[in-house]
Amino acid sequence: MTQRYRLLIEYDGRPFSGWQRQQDQPSVQAAIEKAAEAVDGAPVVVQGSGRTDSGVHALGQVAHLDFQRPIEQRKVADALNAHLRPLPIAILDAWPVQEGFHARFDAVKRHYRYKIINRRADLTVRKGLAWRCPQHLDEAAMQKAAQALIGRHDFSTFRDTGCQADSPVRTLDEITIMRNGNEIDVTCSAQSFLHRQVRSIVGSLVEVGRGREKPGWIADILAAKDRTACGPVAPATGLYLERIDYPE
Amino acid sequence: MTQRYRLLIEYDGRPFSGWQRQQDQPSVQAAIEKAAEAVDGAPVVVQGSGRTDSGVHALGQVAHLDFQRPIEQRKVADALNAHLRPLPIAILDAWPVQEGFHARFDAVKRHYRYKIINRRADLTVRKGLAWRCPQHLDEAAMQKAAQALIGRHDFSTFRDTGCQADSPVRTLDEITIMRNGNEIDVTCSAQSFLHRQVRSIVGSLVEVGRGREKPGWIADILAAKDRTACGPVAPATGLYLERIDYPE
Repeated sequence: MTQRYRLLIEYDGRPFSGWQRQQDQPSVQAAIEKAAEAVDGAPVVVQGSGRTDSGVHALGQVAHLDFQRPIEQRKVADALNAHLRPLPIAILDAWPVQEGFHARFDAVKRHYRYKIINRRADLTVRKGLAWRCPQHLDEAAMQKAAQALIGRHDFSTFRDTGCQADSPVRTLDEITIMRNGNEIDVTCSAQSFLHRQVRSIVGSLVEVGRGREKPGWIADILAAKDRTACGPVAPATGLYLERIDYPE
Repeated sequence: MTQRYRLLIEYDGRPFSGWQRQQDQPSVQAAIEKAAEAVDGAPVVVQGSGRTDSGVHALGQVAHLDFQRPIEQRKVADALNAHLRPLPIAILDAWPVQEGFHARFDAVKRHYRYKIINRRADLTVRKGLAWRCPQHLDEAAMQKAAQALIGRHDFSTFRDTGCQADSPVRTLDEITIMRNGNEIDVTCSAQSFLHRQVRSIVGSLVEVGRGREKPGWIADILAAKDRTACGPVAPATGLYLERIDYPE
């Protein structure tokens, strides 16, 4: 009698080659599968809501797995965490769910946050946890430019050449640029994203923020539907998969 | 013709045995003095607003130093940062100040922040940057208990046995406990603090927060003026020297 669990997962992306299991490379998925096997006593497949790239962090990744052996609900997270130690992966919560629940296919919205620190000095406590941009960024210009991206568009410009999605069309529900002192957070929400879409958008918006491009340039490069029109891709270090929404 | 500069400094306390220069131990002060000597070409003394313990972080430490050779103001921070690399110490800003300015003696208020993450799972992205408390903390009880500490008191209970201050009497201007999700920040402001006073207060407040002691216990142990009455000292990892105020 198997029981499916939904997991809420936080990780520091730095030591991993990404979420996805890979031959001979450390991945978050493989680490959780190994911990789950140690808990359940049999091989376990862990299905995430989606992949994250090498170095990308997660504050609220969601995954599901099936355990063959009964285990008290309140012990699932602790048991997995005990086997994950000392890797920087934490199971924040685990709930029993119906067999039909699917972390990837049931997700209705994905929320990413990109953290920029706008200052000249190198990072110290936040090293590896944000992208430092030394040139002053005009966040109002970035916000204005970003409006062009909201809605349903062909995002070919903002899609990695290795992207395996069938279509470059996505609906971006929200994009917000917020400054608090020298910290600028870019938050993006959509049902799904293309490969490196958020980092491509943020890197292009920073070109606007630092005054190298006018705000209207973002609409122009979107309309070009051409990967070569994109600005530099922002580094993985500032990106966080923040939350995934599911139907109630 | 020497010029005094006031420095605003951020550092990750983990690799250092504290602010204070020490024989054969890495310190923030010695690292900045070495960088300053490389910039100025002669030995430089860096005077901080006060010490921080081994592992304690700073977001806004202040120090002063004198340069013998003229240097453009806007290049001071960059020049020091170039020589500090790759240590996690950043000079955020540098201003020329009058010769009479003294980072320690002129400080009128010091602000500390202690970051607690109240959850069972180990920390990942914030590992080394906060104190994880697995037992549920009642922040309202902590706030109620903390009221007893505000004002002028003999803080012998909350003072490390190695404290070198002449008097155990200090005036705590403010102490606030704020919860945001599972993050609890304790902020404390005073003109000056005793050695390990903030960590002693936070460790004791956590005893109240987890229900091992009633809120009134904080007033009782303060009144005892006895170091052995103090709760466990909170670890250095969650403490940040956040800001120092000077007269305009």
